[in-house]
Amino acid sequence: MKASNKMWKQIAQEAQALRDETLAKVGVTIEIPAQLSRNVTDIPDRVLSASSARITSLAPQEIITLASERKISAQQIVQAFLERAIAAQNLTNCLTEILPERAISQAIELDARLLGNSAPLGPLHGLPVSIKSHIGIANRPLSSGYCAPFHSRQRPDTDALVVQILTRAGAIVHARTTEPQSMMQLECTSNLYGVTTNPYSNILMSSGGSSGGEAALIALRGSVLGVGSDVGGSIRVPAAACGIYGLKPTAFRVPTTGWSSTPPGADPIVTVLGPMSVSLEGLEMFMRVVAAAEPWRIEPALIPLPWRAVDIVLSREKPLRLGIIWHDEVVKPHPPIMRALKEFVNKVSNVPHVEVVDFPPYKHDEAWAIASSLYFTDGGEADLAVMAESGEPLLPLTEWIIKDNPGVKLLDRGELEYWLEEREEFRMEYSQHWNETGVFNRASGNWEGTVDAIICPVAPGVATQHNTAKYWTYTAVWNLLDYPALAFPVGKVDKAVDVKENRKRFMSDLDKENWKLCGRTDFPTPRYVLLNTISTDFQSC
Amino acid sequence: MKASNKMWKQIAQEAQALRDETLAKVGVTIEIPAQLSRNVTDIPDRVLSASSARITSLAPQEIITLASERKISAQQIVQAFLERAIAAQNLTNCLTEILPERAISQAIELDARLLGNSAPLGPLHGLPVSIKSHIGIANRPLSSGYCAPFHSRQRPDTDALVVQILTRAGAIVHARTTEPQSMMQLECTSNLYGVTTNPYSNILMSSGGSSGGEAALIALRGSVLGVGSDVGGSIRVPAAACGIYGLKPTAFRVPTTGWSSTPPGADPIVTVLGPMSVSLEGLEMFMRVVAAAEPWRIEPALIPLPWRAVDIVLSREKPLRLGIIWHDEVVKPHPPIMRALKEFVNKVSNVPHVEVVDFPPYKHDEAWAIASSLYFTDGGEADLAVMAESGEPLLPLTEWIIKDNPGVKLLDRGELEYWLEEREEFRMEYSQHWNETGVFNRASGNWEGTVDAIICPVAPGVATQHNTAKYWTYTAVWNLLDYPALAFPVGKVDKAVDVKENRKRFMSDLDKENWKLCGRTDFPTPRYVLLNTISTDFQSC
Repeated sequence: MKASNKMWKQIAQEAQALRDETLAKVGVTIEIPAQLSRNVTDIPDRVLSASSARITSLAPQEIITLASERKISAQQIVQAFLERAIAAQNLTNCLTEILPERAISQAIELDARLLGNSAPLGPLHGLPVSIKSHIGIANRPLSSGYCAPFHSRQRPDTDALVVQILTRAGAIVHARTTEPQSMMQLECTSNLYGVTTNPYSNILMSSGGSSGGEAALIALRGSVLGVGSDVGGSIRVPAAACGIYGLKPTAFRVPTTGWSSTPPGADPIVTVLGPMSVSLEGLEMFMRVVAAAEPWRIEPALIPLPWRAVDIVLSREKPLRLGIIWHDEVVKPHPPIMRALKEFVNKVSNVPHVEVVDFPPYKHDEAWAIASSLYFTDGGEADLAVMAESGEPLLPLTEWIIKDNPGVKLLDRGELEYWLEEREEFRMEYSQHWNETGVFNRASGNWEGTVDAIICPVAPGVATQHNTAKYWTYTAVWNLLDYPALAFPVGKVDKAVDVKENRKRFMSDLDKENWKLCGRTDFPTPRYVLLNTISTDFQSC
Repeated sequence: MKASNKMWKQIAQEAQALRDETLAKVGVTIEIPAQLSRNVTDIPDRVLSASSARITSLAPQEIITLASERKISAQQIVQAFLERAIAAQNLTNCLTEILPERAISQAIELDARLLGNSAPLGPLHGLPVSIKSHIGIANRPLSSGYCAPFHSRQRPDTDALVVQILTRAGAIVHARTTEPQSMMQLECTSNLYGVTTNPYSNILMSSGGSSGGEAALIALRGSVLGVGSDVGGSIRVPAAACGIYGLKPTAFRVPTTGWSSTPPGADPIVTVLGPMSVSLEGLEMFMRVVAAAEPWRIEPALIPLPWRAVDIVLSREKPLRLGIIWHDEVVKPHPPIMRALKEFVNKVSNVPHVEVVDFPPYKHDEAWAIASSLYFTDGGEADLAVMAESGEPLLPLTEWIIKDNPGVKLLDRGELEYWLEEREEFRMEYSQHWNETGVFNRASGNWEGTVDAIICPVAPGVATQHNTAKYWTYTAVWNLLDYPALAFPVGKVDKAVDVKENRKRFMSDLDKENWKLCGRTDFPTPRYVLLNTISTDFQSC
């Protein structure tokens, strides 16, 4: 036991040494001030050269346009983002490694291409992108947040399919980002790399997770577009905690070939890959490029469906109907979330031809019972085994999700079948519940005038203190239902207004637990965001 | 035991009495000659009135057009098909009941609508359709081929969703068709209704199954369009045995809400509903109507994908490439099948801009190992229990699939997961194998010039003698892969040419077993058909 206990520490040291080695290869020193305020989002601009600061402040499309028109070289762009990623790493510990050699040599090729008067390589020409670490990169380690695989898993020969697609479109992978132990945390802490912190509240709060490395990196503009993954909130919660945009697409839209997880289609709750970005435009850019590559020709589980841009036309005839879930009837969100939602509703209510109605949540407690029963159908056995392999200890949120969660147990085949049928029935019922926001037209057999999208909190609070993010349902319900869900920034905490409520009555024990978390260190200052789930009309976005 | 043994017989008597009662309600006597030749397909025209014979000889679109233009009333059409369905029942035992009251009252409504100068109800205005019995019809029993549920299962309040869609489009359900015990037979025999026979070889041969009632009824034109289901060949094998067209669509295209089976999405190998018809046109008509109804708004497991008609343009630039699977390397089909395939290939090889290449099958033995392990993950427990409930005996092919099949056993969760991963890996490998019929374009990341469709036998022989259809792989492999597959008629046995081969060497024991079946009673005269699976290009047809 002692030998293996030593083993994980050695692996972690090795992993961090490898990371530092890659950082050193950039050949610049990014000095971070010794004294930092809580909010470190302004630091990179202060420590980078003016040119690098300017390049990394551009929107994704601006970068692509400037690179394609030879106004900035891909090499300059890559250099600026490598530097800024190092700053982000020094501030939040968000990287598992950086890829300077690969990125620069790719940039040189792209630049040479334009010098030779060829057209830009593709719609992402010259755009640096970051990739969550469990998505394979050729000849690089693949660890999925655990120590043992970092050592024992064979390095992949080729990039994951999604990376191939981005690369062929002209994107340049420059950074790989952290993920938590087990990848089943809404925070981002592993024994391999430690804790990823929130750029809006350095040290104190979590970046959110599991795609917390992406969120912290993108919030600091060490990347403007990245790829995360989500099975219960892992794209949306960190996006919310760090004030960026994140999309959890429907299952079987974005290829997963070459990641370190179950084969596509074999999971009872499907983990999806999806984009995270500084802007909505970044998300759509990603989805468009991925769908245009027709990845279903390679990964047969994918649905052969082109990307369909939603063009919202507001008209008297067919107003846009938004359904608001104020809270999920289990846990009431903290004051800043409730205020943000109210302000959002006030704002959109004044837009002509937008209708806002309350959307009653449908059995979100049952949703969690089903989802949590299907996350680890082996009772966590495989995960415990991989931890035992290197002797690494269970971190608090791994312990909580695998061991303290009443849903998680070894299911027999009959129980598994039972929960799968529960899942399907819940999907049918929720769909019907949604339909009933409209009126049934007997002749067409369709429901008309149903709500077009739900607006609902991403989480019951803003960025969490470390080891406290235990209430997944605000996001996990949309994984169970397999609806696409978008997290987008709305505003920030206002300490003067968002004071802790004095509550005596609670909807549930979980509600009380969440209330206790409120204001324990008084509020941090991350932005908070709302969750936007899109209706059956756009279900496969 | 004796009491329950009596129970299933009572239920069967009740079921048959109910069926006969509905037949009697049509109020005509269809006299079938006492002496019948083997091939009874000419009988209905001889026993029906000239008018009914003429109406039932029309193509689906002709019927709809004549009804919509008020050249024939829907009532006349329904009456003709009810009569012909009775003839088919008397010849092949293909019905579980007929629905004269419902069909006639619907026809009256449709006719009244046109008299009132309204437009036709929809694109299927006035078309009688038949429905396999495990697809629910309001207030009618729902048995899934077993005795007990006929009695104990509550009658549904509403039609299954697919029936609702067809009805709203103007179709009239006039007949319900037989299905075998367990529905997991490629023949069509149950304790409830007995044996459904093949109209091309009365008594001697099977109609194929499990959608054998549909196939026999449609071959005799007691219906020109019907709905069957398929998880291992159940649409295609009977279509082949009876010389009609049948389409197994991709999963999650046709709604299953309201059938008597697992909820959609909870099955490791997905059972699909699909059309069977006298013509290709009938199949496409069905798919077009179903997709246009956007059933994904009601059944969330469905893919929100419109029907995409495939328009094959033959050109020098992009010729149509057909890949031929001559045999699956496990079991060699009987001589008439091999001849038909050869003749088909000779024919299409002469068409300009059609290329024909051999397509090597990819591990079809492994495909069966995976599929058969996933068909009954409870080792058949639930099916055995439902049979025990009424005391009904296991019929030979039920016994074979549940008890004698090495793949069928109670899986534990780990084994289930293993086979699900095997399934996904097999899908990836087959997709790659298919891609390798083309050339990889590094720049686009796509395979170009791949085979567009595979042409392959539906089964290793023509219509089978009763209780001998045990080799599923020619069809089941496409269920495992979830590729759409179309069975279409090509020709008939020619006794002078299709003589049994004198074989001494076999590819496998199964090959030898299949060879022995050949010509045991010398060849019957059903048509045989080829299976056409469509490439990734059209994968979700």
